[in-house]
Amino acid sequence: MSRQRIAVIGGLASGPAAAAQAKRVDPDADVVLFEQGPDISYGACEMPYYVADQIPCAETLVALTPEAFEQTRKAEVRIRHRVLAIRPQRCRLDVKDLTTGHLAEERFDKFILAVGARARLPGIDGEEAPNVFVMRSLEEARALKNYLGEHRVQHAVVLGGGYIGVEMAEALRVRGVRVTVLEPSSGLLHSYLDEALLPLVHEVVQRHGVVVRRERAEGFEWDAEGNVRAVRTDKGEKIGCQVVVVAIGTVPNTELAEAAGLTRGATGALAVDVQMRTNLPNVWACGDCVEVERVIDGKKIYLPLSPVAFRTARVAATNAARRGRGTPARFPGVVGASAVKVFELEVASVGLRLAEALEAGFDAFAVPIKHWSRVSFYPGARPLHVCLVVERGKGRLLGAQLVGEEGAILRADVLVPCIRDRWTVHRIKDLDLIYTPPFAPALDPLIVAANEAAKQVGKR
Amino acid sequence: MSRQRIAVIGGLASGPAAAAQAKRVDPDADVVLFEQGPDISYGACEMPYYVADQIPCAETLVALTPEAFEQTRKAEVRIRHRVLAIRPQRCRLDVKDLTTGHLAEERFDKFILAVGARARLPGIDGEEAPNVFVMRSLEEARALKNYLGEHRVQHAVVLGGGYIGVEMAEALRVRGVRVTVLEPSSGLLHSYLDEALLPLVHEVVQRHGVVVRRERAEGFEWDAEGNVRAVRTDKGEKIGCQVVVVAIGTVPNTELAEAAGLTRGATGALAVDVQMRTNLPNVWACGDCVEVERVIDGKKIYLPLSPVAFRTARVAATNAARRGRGTPARFPGVVGASAVKVFELEVASVGLRLAEALEAGFDAFAVPIKHWSRVSFYPGARPLHVCLVVERGKGRLLGAQLVGEEGAILRADVLVPCIRDRWTVHRIKDLDLIYTPPFAPALDPLIVAANEAAKQVGKR
Repeated sequence: MSRQRIAVIGGLASGPAAAAQAKRVDPDADVVLFEQGPDISYGACEMPYYVADQIPCAETLVALTPEAFEQTRKAEVRIRHRVLAIRPQRCRLDVKDLTTGHLAEERFDKFILAVGARARLPGIDGEEAPNVFVMRSLEEARALKNYLGEHRVQHAVVLGGGYIGVEMAEALRVRGVRVTVLEPSSGLLHSYLDEALLPLVHEVVQRHGVVVRRERAEGFEWDAEGNVRAVRTDKGEKIGCQVVVVAIGTVPNTELAEAAGLTRGATGALAVDVQMRTNLPNVWACGDCVEVERVIDGKKIYLPLSPVAFRTARVAATNAARRGRGTPARFPGVVGASAVKVFELEVASVGLRLAEALEAGFDAFAVPIKHWSRVSFYPGARPLHVCLVVERGKGRLLGAQLVGEEGAILRADVLVPCIRDRWTVHRIKDLDLIYTPPFAPALDPLIVAANEAAKQVGKR
Repeated sequence: MSRQRIAVIGGLASGPAAAAQAKRVDPDADVVLFEQGPDISYGACEMPYYVADQIPCAETLVALTPEAFEQTRKAEVRIRHRVLAIRPQRCRLDVKDLTTGHLAEERFDKFILAVGARARLPGIDGEEAPNVFVMRSLEEARALKNYLGEHRVQHAVVLGGGYIGVEMAEALRVRGVRVTVLEPSSGLLHSYLDEALLPLVHEVVQRHGVVVRRERAEGFEWDAEGNVRAVRTDKGEKIGCQVVVVAIGTVPNTELAEAAGLTRGATGALAVDVQMRTNLPNVWACGDCVEVERVIDGKKIYLPLSPVAFRTARVAATNAARRGRGTPARFPGVVGASAVKVFELEVASVGLRLAEALEAGFDAFAVPIKHWSRVSFYPGARPLHVCLVVERGKGRLLGAQLVGEEGAILRADVLVPCIRDRWTVHRIKDLDLIYTPPFAPALDPLIVAANEAAKQVGKR
């Protein structure tokens, strides 16, 4: 067989993972990774800690430089190259070298789209101002950190109270900046927590001096240099500030794919099957530009998280490179598990929230309990809040949220295999989880919650 | 139906749990709890931390006083009462009031044996000396703590390097006492860890000044007051000391049961079925005096751990009290999960060690890996060692050990449902565990270990 040429488009997380995997599966292939920015393979999730100066150097976030990637992974890397068009039927792509401006058409047999996502923008005049930051690239993180170092920033407004908004609020507080978060919905992290636990998050951020307003940004005011100096809200307030951080959501980059004839799913992200195939025979897609199956109910969801990106990348690349050898790789879907540190709180969420469970058609109820992270009288024991989302009658666990100052995040992981395998709370209460006074009480908080849920399963 | 009388014998952990559950299931029953000591319902696992003064007051360890237990649980409690004999066929027991010396015969319809276990003794002249402590009761813990307060104790010898030996060594070091641990086998915690991880434990205890000697105690030397002043070992060494702590194992208390006609299993502990029934129709048993089924291979094992005691107690009491109503409760067996803090290290073990797996007839291999507790460059990240025990060919996970300064114990819990449901490492590597830089790297250590194991499953 002749040597195959595989183009991987996008260099943040799933692209490099796909390129490396493609070379592993077919070492003879020519694999070329295209990235329009100057960096590949960096930790976007670590950017708030870089801004906070807890991670001092941006280079630390880069897992591999383009040079190191080429040497170790044996795939070719072209940074500062923008793919303008893909024509899979003709096995061609058009690419522009952003350094020289040179345009080229290149031939590839297969295409792996790893084009990721971008930050949703508020659509307000002035959002392009130099002191408005969107936290989607390492360049942007560097720019914000430089700006904070070079200007007297006393107050920042963060648009959006999801994971990134909350992390950025904390990062700015760590640097001594006053922070106002504008979150027009029911509360910070409302996409991750049911109502029972939301107040815990508000309490801790407010204790650390973060002001949360249930308002939406409607306009900016700016000065002679074009810097935003105030945010106007839908309640007519005007909030003065020296920096604005935009964190109101993530949008999959699908334009290039749609122009190439690929279809999107109901979530708006690219539709792929369990092999990460698109609707075109020589195109695979992975990472933050695709939707994935939630195993709990089989629904397609958009879940732009790094571990999902890595996994879908391996599946896509294996199947793109394997040339009919071996068995196709399959992506087993997601339970949906994520977490965030909010000052001293750990906040974790797995599976469905109650609202999501009801929306998905489950007859579900929520069981919030409060227990202890360790044996209650062992020094350092902290309250731990657990909220289980349970199917009535059957007792199947559909989701869970854990919030506390210790032991919330890794305990949430315990429920990932249970939810994946459709365990009931009756089975969970019988799990022989570890007991040791400095780390877990004799009845683990998960067991206490499952016991309580089991009592309520038959009630209405 | 006439009111039934249920005797529960033993008051530490499983006894009070059984008595309370019996009253829940049949509120009309007369339930009487017999305990020969002065305390019931206390946290034996917390005793090392009490000795170390990290938990200042012994009363803190008592979950419920006899009076509080009677008021809240509605069962009668008789402390300082020793049951001398049970005659189940005649529905009688003989009991001695240790305060008055009074002997009585009482009628009961049903018997729940929760007589627990005692410390194994070395069988050396002098082991009854006032400065030799065995750490099995709250009285003994109080006595040791008093002794340490009232005498100038510079050096202690701990016999045995299992969980309790290691915890007691740490407790004594915290109080400034020099400590030598005598462990004649392959190393500290050798019943919990495979060889790859054993050196980590030795390294940390030695760093904290604990001397470990691969020797067995063969004799004591004592002074005029009868206090042990030196330990002689099987290598002819003589180790001077002011305190000896015995922690060489646990022996189920089966004498009373055997005299009553109950049978023991191969482990030496009482044989029970999944309903916690003994071989006599009106006798149930639970807690540290029974053996339980290990779900991995169906083998009966002796696992004297507090969560097992609580669970078997609920099953035994439900079935003893239910009078044919409802369905019998069943004990689902154990995976076997335990952990211990060793100075700054977390040491956790679930399921089978490699040696146990081979002994059980599995074609198994061990996969030790080293990764990070958090994103490696996030401040505070610590190395985390994971050793998976895997069935060759099939890839089924049989056990795991985790050792590190953070994130070992709760991560071990994640594998409990996986081992119980016979997951392969191929499935585990696809788990979407949580990623968040301050608590877990993009590829969790469990995933890294499962990936490595999956690569090796087919090799020989």
